[in-house]
Amino acid sequence: MYMVNGVLTDVFPVSDRGLQYGDGVFETVLMHEGKPVLWREHLERLERGCRTLRIPYAVNDAGLSASIKEVYDRYHRVGAPSVARCVIKIMITRGGGGRGYRPSQNSHPSEIISIHPLPEIPLEIYQSGIAVRSLKASVSQNPTLAGLKHLNRLDQVMASMELGEDEFEGMMHLPNGDLIEGTKSNVLAKINDRWVTPEISGAGVKGVLRQYLLARSINWGLPVEETRLGQAELADLQAMAIMNSVFGIIPVNRFNETELDVHSVLQEVQASVHKEIPFF
Amino acid sequence: MYMVNGVLTDVFPVSDRGLQYGDGVFETVLMHEGKPVLWREHLERLERGCRTLRIPYAVNDAGLSASIKEVYDRYHRVGAPSVARCVIKIMITRGGGGRGYRPSQNSHPSEIISIHPLPEIPLEIYQSGIAVRSLKASVSQNPTLAGLKHLNRLDQVMASMELGEDEFEGMMHLPNGDLIEGTKSNVLAKINDRWVTPEISGAGVKGVLRQYLLARSINWGLPVEETRLGQAELADLQAMAIMNSVFGIIPVNRFNETELDVHSVLQEVQASVHKEIPFF
Repeated sequence: MYMVNGVLTDVFPVSDRGLQYGDGVFETVLMHEGKPVLWREHLERLERGCRTLRIPYAVNDAGLSASIKEVYDRYHRVGAPSVARCVIKIMITRGGGGRGYRPSQNSHPSEIISIHPLPEIPLEIYQSGIAVRSLKASVSQNPTLAGLKHLNRLDQVMASMELGEDEFEGMMHLPNGDLIEGTKSNVLAKINDRWVTPEISGAGVKGVLRQYLLARSINWGLPVEETRLGQAELADLQAMAIMNSVFGIIPVNRFNETELDVHSVLQEVQASVHKEIPFF
Repeated sequence: MYMVNGVLTDVFPVSDRGLQYGDGVFETVLMHEGKPVLWREHLERLERGCRTLRIPYAVNDAGLSASIKEVYDRYHRVGAPSVARCVIKIMITRGGGGRGYRPSQNSHPSEIISIHPLPEIPLEIYQSGIAVRSLKASVSQNPTLAGLKHLNRLDQVMASMELGEDEFEGMMHLPNGDLIEGTKSNVLAKINDRWVTPEISGAGVKGVLRQYLLARSINWGLPVEETRLGQAELADLQAMAIMNSVFGIIPVNRFNETELDVHSVLQEVQASVHKEIPFF
């Protein structure tokens, strides 16, 4: 179910710059018992994305919340599975205007809200973890766009096509080998007994849960630092987890050929995060 | 005027992966007296793009040509400026299917054909040239996607926003300073009396006219080589031109603070290319 600029519809102007150039940003938000999870953090990133891309969309908490509520209520009324949990996607595009790359001064942004079932996540992987391997498709290096959740997601599409049916996630690197992120998640790693996450300065997405952890985890006695994760650092890898704002923290039990310690993920990170946020 | 999968319409499914992820490719084709210019080269790149992205769209010359003719004929019938020249844009997206980055096996590609007036190009710049400067927005480094004309064009959008009203084009670099391309053009440079064009192995678009020149220009006594254009090479810059398949060859008379030789562009490159291809 899609709502475009306040109207329920399945279609969209073909001239919109979101389609023509991927000129926009998005957020994927977990809904728990009718409420968006990590909502303030999503709003902040949406605002930051629009500002960086200079899309003149004023992020308005009350307006967006009302629209989400309308979509959510209708979705349940029309007989969708009456689950307590689902996913809302918010896309903001620059709108129409401006043939050619340069936007016109009078483009009006488009707001698209859609609702989707929660992706299927086997519950046992929260305890046993998953094996991940490095994928061949590179993550694009571009300091201008790094961090944003923009609509140019071919990197993730190409990497995802390498995954087998039974692989939940895979790892993406820069051409130089540095580990940056999963196709749909950020990475936490334990190296020399410290928790770190790859630096997102030249490439990658600053996931909402990643930013939440960087800002709050020190209060839980779980300091997380940003660092480069090159081959040297990865050689000392002890434990690893993937994280995003829809599924929370999932341990990694093997990265390529290296067996990893799942126990410390469960005890240290997952316990802290899942105590704060209702991921499952 | 837009034609989506054979039907004239202004709208498009909002669920299409072209909008959701920029999951597709496009070509911008000059029409001269009702015929697409550099058509074989455009078809080849379209085919290569779909193959690399694994979009199951079979490029069909006869079918596409018939669709273009239909759009072109209607455009002129409905009272569009009766110009001999215009631009056709062909977009192929992966279509619907697959929530999340990974495409579904049964997605059906979408074909979008649109027609547009020729961008305004002041004729005098073909003789006097233009001044260009380096823009701040980086071009994304990604060997997996380099060369393709895909729908992830935020790099070009960001760079174009830096251009003033009176600037026809600007130059895009890698974060390390290497010159890659213009926002809407490839670059030809004369260095140590040889014509070169930046290597597109890790970043950038392999423009159709660029590929045409690389393949044919040796027959005209105008060998063009691919090379890295780092700061060292740029220090020896003698002449420069921008090129694309819509406007042809336009000399650059100044690059940042360096005055450049326009005469050799006009005599050597532009004369040869514009003799072969009817750019204006």
